[in-house]
Amino acid sequence: MKALEDKIHKEGKVLPGNILKVDCFLNHCIDVPFLMEMGKEIAELYKEDNVNKILTIETSGIPIAFAAAQYMNVPVVFAKKNKSGNISDDVYSSRVTSYTKKNVYDAIVSKEFLSSDDNVLIIDDFLAKGNALTGLMDIISQSGATLIGCAIAIEKGFQGGGDELRAKGIRVDSLAIVEEMTEDVFSLSFRR
Amino acid sequence: MKALEDKIHKEGKVLPGNILKVDCFLNHCIDVPFLMEMGKEIAELYKEDNVNKILTIETSGIPIAFAAAQYMNVPVVFAKKNKSGNISDDVYSSRVTSYTKKNVYDAIVSKEFLSSDDNVLIIDDFLAKGNALTGLMDIISQSGATLIGCAIAIEKGFQGGGDELRAKGIRVDSLAIVEEMTEDVFSLSFRR
Repeated sequence: MKALEDKIHKEGKVLPGNILKVDCFLNHCIDVPFLMEMGKEIAELYKEDNVNKILTIETSGIPIAFAAAQYMNVPVVFAKKNKSGNISDDVYSSRVTSYTKKNVYDAIVSKEFLSSDDNVLIIDDFLAKGNALTGLMDIISQSGATLIGCAIAIEKGFQGGGDELRAKGIRVDSLAIVEEMTEDVFSLSFRR
Repeated sequence: MKALEDKIHKEGKVLPGNILKVDCFLNHCIDVPFLMEMGKEIAELYKEDNVNKILTIETSGIPIAFAAAQYMNVPVVFAKKNKSGNISDDVYSSRVTSYTKKNVYDAIVSKEFLSSDDNVLIIDDFLAKGNALTGLMDIISQSGATLIGCAIAIEKGFQGGGDELRAKGIRVDSLAIVEEMTEDVFSLSFRR
């Protein structure tokens, strides 16, 4: 999505540790019309796929999932991050190691919100190593639902998570794939 | 908002500890068209007030804030919950004690996203004791921005936080105010 690449170039910053900071429009301050455009693009990509539910994970995946859901006329379920270690029986859960935050949590989803009748599209803001996605796919698998694909705003292609999933036959669509970046944001390059 | 009261009656549950569980449409699974209706109602309430920014707090405030923002044509800033105790210089922060989760965190907002030019509407999903709102108001005050009001989906009126704020002259609009509830959801009653 050219408009997203342009926006990352214009407004993003690269911080030490391969962090791409886009909190001015995506994950702290939300540029609502722009996120609606991103949601529309995702809806267009999956319009033939009978998706009946979107699954994301708190926090930053929620706005883009909500935007796409409006165009797709489906509900959004967001997985919660549970750091207590206590998991009740009425949830699906999967252990996730966060690349950005260097912590470990259990992604949890109440069993009442996912079932074998569901065709699920996962949406998230970032894809780096793919750890959060793997956790969400594990939850989908536990529920017996069908995974349709994963739609991501920004994939850090150089970290390999997206290509690993594609190599396993999983559909992954990223609106922008960053192939290289350095602490000077202007050296960002995108996959075409 | 009668439709919200009806939905709470129909789909909500009351759990021990004065917890009103509405995760089937508001804060785990999101009923997108319904949240859009709630956002529209909030936009209508504040249409004359020159709001130029919505402030909410992760996680559950985000969908309703995003919905209202679409009708109000303003960006959403969401405060983050920082539990590390380390606060950098480039953020506003305020210590909050969570009633529901029985924990303490610092609500933080990057200084670049709030300034004295802003007329801010706070939006959140729940109001009980008002601790999260008080933290967000403290952040607005630190930034020099103007607080226009607080729009809440569900206020637990019997916990008094909303009325305390109103007594201080702060505008608080709740789409539904629960006056009484017991573990039997059917005994819910609303303020008129």
